[in-house]
Amino acid sequence: MSIIKLSPRQEQIIKLVKETEPITSEQLASKLSVTRAALRPDLAILTMTGILEAKPKVGYVYSQRPSHSLIYDYIRTIKVKDIMSKPVVVDENTTVYDAIVHLFLNDVGTLFIENNGLLIGAVSRKDFLKIAMGGTDIHKVPVGIIMTRMPNIVFVEKEDAAYLAALKIMEHEVDSLPVVEKAYIGTKESIKIVGKVSKTNITRLFVKMGENS
Amino acid sequence: MSIIKLSPRQEQIIKLVKETEPITSEQLASKLSVTRAALRPDLAILTMTGILEAKPKVGYVYSQRPSHSLIYDYIRTIKVKDIMSKPVVVDENTTVYDAIVHLFLNDVGTLFIENNGLLIGAVSRKDFLKIAMGGTDIHKVPVGIIMTRMPNIVFVEKEDAAYLAALKIMEHEVDSLPVVEKAYIGTKESIKIVGKVSKTNITRLFVKMGENS
Repeated sequence: MSIIKLSPRQEQIIKLVKETEPITSEQLASKLSVTRAALRPDLAILTMTGILEAKPKVGYVYSQRPSHSLIYDYIRTIKVKDIMSKPVVVDENTTVYDAIVHLFLNDVGTLFIENNGLLIGAVSRKDFLKIAMGGTDIHKVPVGIIMTRMPNIVFVEKEDAAYLAALKIMEHEVDSLPVVEKAYIGTKESIKIVGKVSKTNITRLFVKMGENS
Repeated sequence: MSIIKLSPRQEQIIKLVKETEPITSEQLASKLSVTRAALRPDLAILTMTGILEAKPKVGYVYSQRPSHSLIYDYIRTIKVKDIMSKPVVVDENTTVYDAIVHLFLNDVGTLFIENNGLLIGAVSRKDFLKIAMGGTDIHKVPVGIIMTRMPNIVFVEKEDAAYLAALKIMEHEVDSLPVVEKAYIGTKESIKIVGKVSKTNITRLFVKMGENS
């Protein structure tokens, strides 16, 4: 999908039509101090793209059809696989202390917990801070005890829209989502972690969208 | 600024021109199995918006002018004041323990530290976890001792672009920026905190941009 920008004069025409519709091309030309002929290409673009509607013997009116401002259409073409990064994973038997060391060494906000290569849980910086404040012996307790456990983990898949990932992050108030693939152990469905999408990935994407490429 | 979407046929024309430029309107009409007359409105839009260039006696070529894909133009119209939220602020004499309690009660990732109503520092969840892991007596030590201190705090102002806030968050690897206003104590320039912009605010903005309003 391509997105094109309207010229300042086209913006001005839309503004005038919104204010005083219906308005004829003569009236528009007079307000803009140009000839009707000079306006013709702009009016052609604005009607052909469906932004304005030309009513015979009445004038131009602003169309209510949502054929513009379609930023959201562009956003929805971006997929999780386009923005995901590598997850930091530890085994469920790792002590809380060692898990926190992993968190710092990798400078991430969430650790994902595996058992035999399958995703079984997640622990955030916030969970660790809560534990570190309490009386728990973080050198003895395994991270598997304090983690949030499947099926209470919200996740996305590679082909999902990045928009969906951002929406789930906001709705479930988490910093990071695992990106998963379905796996089968015999007939039992399980999930493998193949990536992660966090608020950092969304912020990076936003910066990229705003770059003057 | 308005953004308009190209029709599927216009997209197809751009693709054909990119593949085989220069290409005449007869050749385009034949490839699309339509008449030249049927293509005229589309070609008019594509040339008037500067996406295609019509070279007399040669045909249409794809223009290298960056007059489309101007998502970044739209993004740069969004300001910090449009997305900022209320900062959680504590006095520098608050103990680390009480500060962490504040962090949890308000469910934020960063606390901002004030002295006499002026911003003097910031402490993140990561800083608190580091302290809680060490031997520090968090019931005695004031948060002012462990905070990151001005002038080492990156900030933005209300009228800055949200894009700039996102860029600073990524470049300085922080979760949250204070939004500040300049204040004067006698002749000394100081800053007051009036808001904050975090990765959460950027993610919320992204969700809003992707919403089917």
